[in-house]
Amino acid sequence: MTPHSWLRWPATTPPSTGRGPLGFGADYNPEQWSRETWREDVRLMREAGVNVVNLGIFAWATVQPTSDRYEWDVLDEAFELLHANGVAVDLGTGTASPPPWLTAEHPEILPVTENGQVLYPGGRQHFRPTSPVFRRYALAHVRAVAERYGSHPGLALWHVSNELGCHNVHDYSDDAATAFREWLRARYGSVDALNEAWATSFWSQRYSDWSQVLPPRIAAAFRNPGQQLDFHRFSSDALRDYLQAEVAVLRELTPDVPITTNFMVMGGTRAMNYAEWRDDVDVISNDHYLTAADADRYEELAFSAALVRGLARSRPWFLMEQSTSAVNWQPINPPKAPGQLARDSLTQLAYGADAISYFQWRQSAGGAEKFHSALVPHAGTDSRVWREVCELGAALSALTDVAGSTATAGRVALLFDWEAWWAAELDSHPSDRFRYRTLLFDWFKAFADAGFAVDVQPVADDFADHPLVVAPGLYLVGDDTRRRVSEHVAAGGHFVTTFFSGIVDETDRVVLGGYPGAFRELLGIRVEEFGPLLDGDEVPVEGGGSSSLWADSIEVVAPEVEVLAHYAGARAGAPVATRRPIGAGSASYVGARLDAATLRGLVARLAAAAGVEPDLDPSAAEHVLRRERNHDDTRYVFLLNRGDQPRTVKGESGFDVLAGRAVDDVVELPPYGAVVLRSLR
Amino acid sequence: MTPHSWLRWPATTPPSTGRGPLGFGADYNPEQWSRETWREDVRLMREAGVNVVNLGIFAWATVQPTSDRYEWDVLDEAFELLHANGVAVDLGTGTASPPPWLTAEHPEILPVTENGQVLYPGGRQHFRPTSPVFRRYALAHVRAVAERYGSHPGLALWHVSNELGCHNVHDYSDDAATAFREWLRARYGSVDALNEAWATSFWSQRYSDWSQVLPPRIAAAFRNPGQQLDFHRFSSDALRDYLQAEVAVLRELTPDVPITTNFMVMGGTRAMNYAEWRDDVDVISNDHYLTAADADRYEELAFSAALVRGLARSRPWFLMEQSTSAVNWQPINPPKAPGQLARDSLTQLAYGADAISYFQWRQSAGGAEKFHSALVPHAGTDSRVWREVCELGAALSALTDVAGSTATAGRVALLFDWEAWWAAELDSHPSDRFRYRTLLFDWFKAFADAGFAVDVQPVADDFADHPLVVAPGLYLVGDDTRRRVSEHVAAGGHFVTTFFSGIVDETDRVVLGGYPGAFRELLGIRVEEFGPLLDGDEVPVEGGGSSSLWADSIEVVAPEVEVLAHYAGARAGAPVATRRPIGAGSASYVGARLDAATLRGLVARLAAAAGVEPDLDPSAAEHVLRRERNHDDTRYVFLLNRGDQPRTVKGESGFDVLAGRAVDDVVELPPYGAVVLRSLR
Amino acid sequence: MTPHSWLRWPATTPPSTGRGPLGFGADYNPEQWSRETWREDVRLMREAGVNVVNLGIFAWATVQPTSDRYEWDVLDEAFELLHANGVAVDLGTGTASPPPWLTAEHPEILPVTENGQVLYPGGRQHFRPTSPVFRRYALAHVRAVAERYGSHPGLALWHVSNELGCHNVHDYSDDAATAFREWLRARYGSVDALNEAWATSFWSQRYSDWSQVLPPRIAAAFRNPGQQLDFHRFSSDALRDYLQAEVAVLRELTPDVPITTNFMVMGGTRAMNYAEWRDDVDVISNDHYLTAADADRYEELAFSAALVRGLARSRPWFLMEQSTSAVNWQPINPPKAPGQLARDSLTQLAYGADAISYFQWRQSAGGAEKFHSALVPHAGTDSRVWREVCELGAALSALTDVAGSTATAGRVALLFDWEAWWAAELDSHPSDRFRYRTLLFDWFKAFADAGFAVDVQPVADDFADHPLVVAPGLYLVGDDTRRRVSEHVAAGGHFVTTFFSGIVDETDRVVLGGYPGAFRELLGIRVEEFGPLLDGDEVPVEGGGSSSLWADSIEVVAPEVEVLAHYAGARAGAPVATRRPIGAGSASYVGARLDAATLRGLVARLAAAAGVEPDLDPSAAEHVLRRERNHDDTRYVFLLNRGDQPRTVKGESGFDVLAGRAVDDVVELPPYGAVVLRSLR
Repeated sequence: MTPHSWLRWPATTPPSTGRGPLGFGADYNPEQWSRETWREDVRLMREAGVNVVNLGIFAWATVQPTSDRYEWDVLDEAFELLHANGVAVDLGTGTASPPPWLTAEHPEILPVTENGQVLYPGGRQHFRPTSPVFRRYALAHVRAVAERYGSHPGLALWHVSNELGCHNVHDYSDDAATAFREWLRARYGSVDALNEAWATSFWSQRYSDWSQVLPPRIAAAFRNPGQQLDFHRFSSDALRDYLQAEVAVLRELTPDVPITTNFMVMGGTRAMNYAEWRDDVDVISNDHYLTAADADRYEELAFSAALVRGLARSRPWFLMEQSTSAVNWQPINPPKAPGQLARDSLTQLAYGADAISYFQWRQSAGGAEKFHSALVPHAGTDSRVWREVCELGAALSALTDVAGSTATAGRVALLFDWEAWWAAELDSHPSDRFRYRTLLFDWFKAFADAGFAVDVQPVADDFADHPLVVAPGLYLVGDDTRRRVSEHVAAGGHFVTTFFSGIVDETDRVVLGGYPGAFRELLGIRVEEFGPLLDGDEVPVEGGGSSSLWADSIEVVAPEVEVLAHYAGARAGAPVATRRPIGAGSASYVGARLDAATLRGLVARLAAAAGVEPDLDPSAAEHVLRRERNHDDTRYVFLLNRGDQPRTVKGESGFDVLAGRAVDDVVELPPYGAVVLRSLR
Repeated sequence: MTPHSWLRWPATTPPSTGRGPLGFGADYNPEQWSRETWREDVRLMREAGVNVVNLGIFAWATVQPTSDRYEWDVLDEAFELLHANGVAVDLGTGTASPPPWLTAEHPEILPVTENGQVLYPGGRQHFRPTSPVFRRYALAHVRAVAERYGSHPGLALWHVSNELGCHNVHDYSDDAATAFREWLRARYGSVDALNEAWATSFWSQRYSDWSQVLPPRIAAAFRNPGQQLDFHRFSSDALRDYLQAEVAVLRELTPDVPITTNFMVMGGTRAMNYAEWRDDVDVISNDHYLTAADADRYEELAFSAALVRGLARSRPWFLMEQSTSAVNWQPINPPKAPGQLARDSLTQLAYGADAISYFQWRQSAGGAEKFHSALVPHAGTDSRVWREVCELGAALSALTDVAGSTATAGRVALLFDWEAWWAAELDSHPSDRFRYRTLLFDWFKAFADAGFAVDVQPVADDFADHPLVVAPGLYLVGDDTRRRVSEHVAAGGHFVTTFFSGIVDETDRVVLGGYPGAFRELLGIRVEEFGPLLDGDEVPVEGGGSSSLWADSIEVVAPEVEVLAHYAGARAGAPVATRRPIGAGSASYVGARLDAATLRGLVARLAAAAGVEPDLDPSAAEHVLRRERNHDDTRYVFLLNRGDQPRTVKGESGFDVLAGRAVDDVVELPPYGAVVLRSLR
Repeated sequence: MTPHSWLRWPATTPPSTGRGPLGFGADYNPEQWSRETWREDVRLMREAGVNVVNLGIFAWATVQPTSDRYEWDVLDEAFELLHANGVAVDLGTGTASPPPWLTAEHPEILPVTENGQVLYPGGRQHFRPTSPVFRRYALAHVRAVAERYGSHPGLALWHVSNELGCHNVHDYSDDAATAFREWLRARYGSVDALNEAWATSFWSQRYSDWSQVLPPRIAAAFRNPGQQLDFHRFSSDALRDYLQAEVAVLRELTPDVPITTNFMVMGGTRAMNYAEWRDDVDVISNDHYLTAADADRYEELAFSAALVRGLARSRPWFLMEQSTSAVNWQPINPPKAPGQLARDSLTQLAYGADAISYFQWRQSAGGAEKFHSALVPHAGTDSRVWREVCELGAALSALTDVAGSTATAGRVALLFDWEAWWAAELDSHPSDRFRYRTLLFDWFKAFADAGFAVDVQPVADDFADHPLVVAPGLYLVGDDTRRRVSEHVAAGGHFVTTFFSGIVDETDRVVLGGYPGAFRELLGIRVEEFGPLLDGDEVPVEGGGSSSLWADSIEVVAPEVEVLAHYAGARAGAPVATRRPIGAGSASYVGARLDAATLRGLVARLAAAAGVEPDLDPSAAEHVLRRERNHDDTRYVFLLNRGDQPRTVKGESGFDVLAGRAVDDVVELPPYGAVVLRSLR
């Protein structure tokens, strides 16, 4: 952890309060446009209330057109112009995409797929994270940028590379092989320990020398799961190591400038263990894009934002990239609906984002992302998008006092773990339909449907302050987690887990004696064989619901275990969910992937049994997500409409979903009906 | 353009009229059969009326079994036998498939995929179009063939290679890289111009030297669209350059023999810009195969044939390959229905084909295409296929006077452009479901359903003589097209375009200010954001129809714009199609992919407003396609049944679909009910 | 053929009869466990009745951790412990998975895919079957193992490698290319003969030297079918050659120890021509796993077992691998239902297996197959699986006298041919939906449904003793088969074949004159064109059934041909199945893939016409499979329940499905209702 905690706002940025403004901005790529357009840009930025932009993210080839020549004029002038117009700069180190001269001179920096295919230039991020050659050039470039701009008064933040790992995190090149071996040697110390961890006694895989170890390149049969899991760990660490290398250059030259890099906590992006990465930066940033496949898109926004908040340990964070409307990278890219721009951004704000930014300021006329929306669209400023941008800018300005407030913790903790995610979705498993994140999302949504705010947090973070701790599908459980869960329950806390949890230790070795090995004794139950269901198969559950994907057969072992729910139909009478009271605490198990309504009812019962009250009346919860932020002196309640139809959150007697508490001020944000209630007492 | 215009029929070919015969034939591969079979072949050719065959297409390895030895006997004898039996020869240069000795001695001629995979021998066409080594051997072979047979009296036509580009048009080898750089240097002159055209300021892709440029090989992220689009152009040009190299050898040695190569205007084949290629040959030839997926297969035949006619600028062309019955290269290959053989061929004739040929004469007993049908099937001549072949031969003989007549132009022009096709279907777009050719087919079929004959023509060809010019989905529009469209409308012409038209210029750079930039002012409307629809989504349209794939929100800008149709449902009242009167002309926009019935109604309204009358009564149009050919003295009307059930085209008062015009002669072709009416006045 | 016929049971194995016991066991991999666990293992083996285990299958890296060091202690001690506890050993040569030191020192042994991708270590079986380097190391290892354990009194059987060909049978490396050329030279003698066989006159593929020939690596177009078919043959032979090389070492050192290797007669596994391989081993072994996709899984078990019985020429065979419950390699892996473990195993016993074994003894805690079930599951011995294992052990003990009895031949022979399978499913065919094995399974099941026992046998084996010989989809027919079928019919036998039979000779060259060329004259019918149906298309058949996949149009040529069934609907009156009486015999043709009920009715008619009575009353056949085994003095009837619901096979008057024959002894095996009736007279 560094001493920094937030942007170093320039003196010229107008703060409405002593706490500084909320950030509002976008990636700004002046190299795509004429100087005349730049002047229009800054005028429009002032009009919209933009106060920070992310500059130079892809400027490497612009500022260093050959290995031995720098041309700073574009960045110099653009930076000055922004600064003169009161726009702070989050400056990119610019290393996200190697310039053509570098790959032409050093093709040995190009990544290699598991199939042995070289990934050529033409897109972006075509470098091996472990390439010593790439590092030499990239770090020299970082040094040059930092030397030139490190003392600029408009520099608010360093932006290391961009979306690290989006395309190249899993590199199987010979550089990666060398680095993987070094990483393994550091982790295990001896080849014998590696053999034990990877269970190489199976399939005649025992190594006798480090030099024999390779990344899990394409093989004739299932690759060793230990090798695969460690390659996930290594790949995250190797890229993190690269991040640290850039950070070290910046720290050396500009010790007072805070540093960030934009994470990608969204959808299925999973290769970077951000729970570890977060400590390398001063400001947590995140990119978040909804997709057409996100049927529950408002909950997806909330779920991702909640996890970013968990990563940020409740400090302010930076929503670095999102889209104002359509993106370009899905098969089909419809525009956002009217009002969605504001609602999506306010959701991030509600979960602790103190800066709201987009890719990108002005929609490109050419290149691979010209059909990605922007603040200034192809259609220009006479457009719905631009009008909504300006409206949001005004709203953020009206909410300036929110800046620096704390995103309040709830009473339910949902544990999230990247290692468990990787491990649970390795091949050769009971079901390749199992999706860790989807399962956690199920539970997040169930709590939201029932009116509960949920804190999503890395499993390693302390959860003792949350009465109810939920860990669905936590396939891999280390000794530390096992111990902390037991202590929590012993201290009167409540713990809930599900099928395919507690199966293996950190080396992917099964905890024997019956599933879920790591939690079996705590739960007082036992499962002999996994219950994956074929596609389309459903097992009915008492009360009219059903389970798909999975339906464990649970044997109750401890006599005090209560059965919370039973299967119906052919398996009638068999338990689908159990709860073992342990002193004032409890440990519960849910052996199936329940339909939404059944799970909603179950989480309400689990919460009630844990003494946790809902934050919203369940009838309001159907269409509203609630989140709070607090200063010492002011409390903000965000009521975010969950559906596409505007709905009021007021009852007949006013804001009765707040149970009669006084409201000083109400900010309503049409057309989606988002509401911010200020200064509740 | 060369002085040649059609086959150099040998003196021995019996012409029925002074205009020469209609050609009838097939690929003939004597190297697969014994000399005894050859004698049966020529006897059967005479029986069927075959008068031209395509010889030696794959004879390279037969006549040149090693790099330093020629064995001409098979070709010599077969040629003599054919000539002696009155069968003219379209002689292949034979270079379509490099022989094993060549690839064994020179594996560096093998193509490489975008993934870096070498394409090995075993199939056909395994050569890099840009390989200097392949060219040296191939052109030497062409020279040897031309020297041996160039003065043969039976030689009617040269056939360069075969289906150029079917499998190898996109080669990513180092040879291709070198040639691509040379092509780019010729196109752009400077690296700066390349950078501008490719918008390399995005993603740090600025080149500082030509040597850094590569084909768009597999990359980590979306490849640069300019690089992709130019690689399409280059690939077509590189293969065309190879075609020209063969042609140059033939022109040098046999200046009086016309030359062809068989195009593949059919289905999704799109990599060769035949609008440019056509000027390198004397005779336009085409291969056309229907697939099981062609639900509207009679319109598909007509659409492709119409485009070939457009390429041929109304001169006679050669239907080089089709199948008599089943093919072998689809997943499932059912046989053709009885009568389909004749009907398919007559459709080509109606659109201007003066020679009707097939792959291949005698069905192979071995090899990769042994389950591809032929004129003489595995079952022999006691077979339905052979009987239908003979019937068609007789019919063509009865229609000999059609030879040389002009395929009459209609009043509706449908503009077709290969560059727009390539560009519109690049990745990273609003919708990857957009299919340029499918959209044009929609419109072709809508006009056919409404009784209109449509001329499909390259966008660069003059369209001033067509009152109604339609350009659906013309995503890429160059300055010249833009100007010509404006001039057409200013001169009283009518122009219709659709969603995703006029979006970019020739460098794939967006025309800013609102869509469709290139036509926005002409149309008097404006679209802010694209309206792609998710799979399964439909937007209702007034009158009971609907739109799928796309539904733009149109803002009417010019006050004189008329709204031709509105959306219904949630978007009720919003325009789906508009028409701006401009003097005597007009410019119309259709913002959605309408269902067939709605589009049919719309094209009828657009045609009526343009003063264009249908060629057929709409009630007859449901089951008949009509096309005309003319000599100065005779007029032929082809009425082609559109369905699988025979239908009469006669009304109660005779051929009243012809509105009472006199008919000298009627040729009816069972069982599909195709009719040719001769000498109408 | 060697003098051996069955396991060399150690003197310490308790035989219940003079014929030796039935084997019962599993793969045993002590290297995965502690010595303490080993002691528990042998105790549990005794408890369950395990009397033979497969040891050392993947022990190479354990016993030879580097190229120059052996560590025998694990195998030594485990072997002694097993022997001391009365458990015989089927000892693996251990070469199934090359150890890391070998691939690190010799990466040139790694297989290469048709796309040119190297298959790296990480899984198993990553070696080129033709690699001289691999062979040198592997055979040296075999020699070391044989020298150490060849004279051990507990050694009952050698187990060569493991599942040879599961992942690496098709290797396209340069080693494979060299070996392929040698194989072709031996097969064809001259390049001219190769050209003739492969029909290289097509597509200019004529070879002029052996050095030009390559494996069918990825190509630009369809690869030569002769090249593909011979590569199938070669790949099977190359792997067989490797098997023979291991066998030769073992024969040299331990001429008295029988040898096996585990075949994979199951599902779509097809690359090894076991009809040829069987003669290289003394004991036929098979692995058989059911999949979730096996809707007719009891018939799939019976079908595979019947083919293994055919391969074994009715001698006892070894069911080497199956699962006690779930596997790990499907997308979704549900556990087996209660009782299925016993029923699956008894089916194998009924078809002649005298040893029933599993993969593996104790479920792994780590590695790629840790979620594959075992005899001792993760849950331990307090588990359903373990209890069922013990119950089966007891049942096998009660059936010890079955050992060595003959699996009785039926009267219907179903001909099976690997070459026909390969050839029928090459690309560029009438339908790529055609699945040879599925079609044979259709017929097997139809006979089973109608109450007939069917013998599935390699086409080369004598079928003269079977009155009714059925050869569905026998696309490739050699001269010998053609002659034997004719002789069979001439001798009064009955022959049935179907669409896509008799199409080509052994070089994949079509037999001309009309399909099915090889059998056309015998059948007295003729088909001009193939009748593949598009997905979803069905052609109705008289009587309410229908055909999918295929519907030939049959022309009856010989006047005596009877039409057995007609199409209905649009093709009403056309024959779908024909029968030509020839003396006392007959030849029948079925031109469609009939629905199950129609085919069941048809096979009953064909059997009746051939004078073959059903073995079971058809009403019983719906839920029971019947199979017999015999000693000279005792007869065993296995009645195996076909569904998931227990059903009695007794009628009101006892076992009336047996038509009143006396039963000495009945063994009932709940819960699936399997019954073994002993000593029928």
